[in-house]
Amino acid sequence: MSETFGQRLSAALDLHGALCVGIDPHAALLSAWGLDATAEGAREFGLRTVEAAHGRVGVVKPQVAFYERYGSRGFAALEDVMAAARDAGLLVIADAKRGDIGTTMEGYAHAWLAPGSPLEADAVTLSPYLGADSLREALALAVHHGKGAFVLTATSNPEARALQSAIVDDALAVGDREHVAARVAHDVNQANIGAPGALGPVGVVVGATVDRSAFGLGDVALAGMPILAPGFGAQGAAPADLRRLFGYVASAVVANESRSILAVGPDRLAARIDERAALYRESLHG
Amino acid sequence: MSETFGQRLSAALDLHGALCVGIDPHAALLSAWGLDATAEGAREFGLRTVEAAHGRVGVVKPQVAFYERYGSRGFAALEDVMAAARDAGLLVIADAKRGDIGTTMEGYAHAWLAPGSPLEADAVTLSPYLGADSLREALALAVHHGKGAFVLTATSNPEARALQSAIVDDALAVGDREHVAARVAHDVNQANIGAPGALGPVGVVVGATVDRSAFGLGDVALAGMPILAPGFGAQGAAPADLRRLFGYVASAVVANESRSILAVGPDRLAARIDERAALYRESLHG
Repeated sequence: MSETFGQRLSAALDLHGALCVGIDPHAALLSAWGLDATAEGAREFGLRTVEAAHGRVGVVKPQVAFYERYGSRGFAALEDVMAAARDAGLLVIADAKRGDIGTTMEGYAHAWLAPGSPLEADAVTLSPYLGADSLREALALAVHHGKGAFVLTATSNPEARALQSAIVDDALAVGDREHVAARVAHDVNQANIGAPGALGPVGVVVGATVDRSAFGLGDVALAGMPILAPGFGAQGAAPADLRRLFGYVASAVVANESRSILAVGPDRLAARIDERAALYRESLHG
Repeated sequence: MSETFGQRLSAALDLHGALCVGIDPHAALLSAWGLDATAEGAREFGLRTVEAAHGRVGVVKPQVAFYERYGSRGFAALEDVMAAARDAGLLVIADAKRGDIGTTMEGYAHAWLAPGSPLEADAVTLSPYLGADSLREALALAVHHGKGAFVLTATSNPEARALQSAIVDDALAVGDREHVAARVAHDVNQANIGAPGALGPVGVVVGATVDRSAFGLGDVALAGMPILAPGFGAQGAAPADLRRLFGYVASAVVANESRSILAVGPDRLAARIDERAALYRESLHG
């Protein structure tokens, strides 16, 4: 049997450390890089970032919205960027935050995770407002194809707290206080049952600076799942905080930095990635 | 000042009734229509549906996932389908269920709602797992451009209930029981403040067969907002149920049918749309 996404991710994290380089060609960064705010500019931005990331980190995360804004041409650029990244041996997490039900969800899963699909990635981010269980078949499809998924669970933006920390009503009825985020993590983890290795193929998105206790997300709730953690770098958390913030599950964290790396511009990019990647390696193994 | 999306939608509902024709080229339907499961097949499927809908209903809703699965070529097909629909005077709701924060959400809002964008629609569906308030700027952008949005609020799939009916914790603290769905509807409606006309430009997605009381979504919670309601036709609710299901806010409902219409095939499509559209008109005005 071929390797699971969890196994490939484990190997990448062991080799390169936790850093994941975001590919976020928003207009301000394109301008700072001397590129046009067009699909062509976003392609160039992505290809240069992939080149700089190659051999320095294990994972990149293109932000789909910044390609989608240019329509079909933007998606053609994204296809090129993801293909280049995968050819370079990088794991690609397509940050698409898709979420739907039934055959529609199947369409999204096929788009991002089916081998040979033009938008094929190694993993995709998903959004569970329709219930994490509504993603069950998409997660099963990911596992089937040796792919992965990260489901939005607890995020650090303040507007998210009311919803993600809400108390599930059926739990309340029996005197329990189960938070929405904890229910999502639990439901997602079901798809990892039976997977080989220490890390399952499907996991969660948990912001680095989130107070996990407010969402019922202790280490046990997250055990065995890969954790995509935005919020490092420009957004507030330092590489040295990785162990303190994630405790027992720190070795499962994919720590995303975008602006803090991309803002140095294309010429200093490789050096910056080297520097940041080393900080994460020291944090866990130093 | 030019018309708002709420005003254009009101006029379309008054003229044609509640029916919205879904454009869902999933593989089984493409095959039934004698079309290939390719971007080209999905384009043809969409264009024929637009042709049949023209003059018979006011609104169409392409399901983005079924185009996205073909990558950039699928999006090029979707661009053609949406342009043809808008040229035919149909209001286009792009069913994309996008949701993110900050500049990323701005990217999605720009993609679907900015005039001149290749994927320009009249309205887009959004997903609020990151907090409905995280969509505030996207909703403001929609209003600014005379566009609309429908935010997922209460859906009829059983896996959604735990999350969407969960009790917001800060409300619980003061002895109130505010459901997540009710909080979403409330937050979304803020973007309608000051909009002219009986119907605001931004609204909610509420499944036709949802027990609204379980989500705190009485008529007052939904007043003034357009309501996109999947769940008519093949999914269970009948046009004659519209008034019973939505009461006081029934006139704000955009009733989507997809499979129940599309499954008749391309030759009988126009007749089928005529027949279903008439049932909705009779339901409210008969």
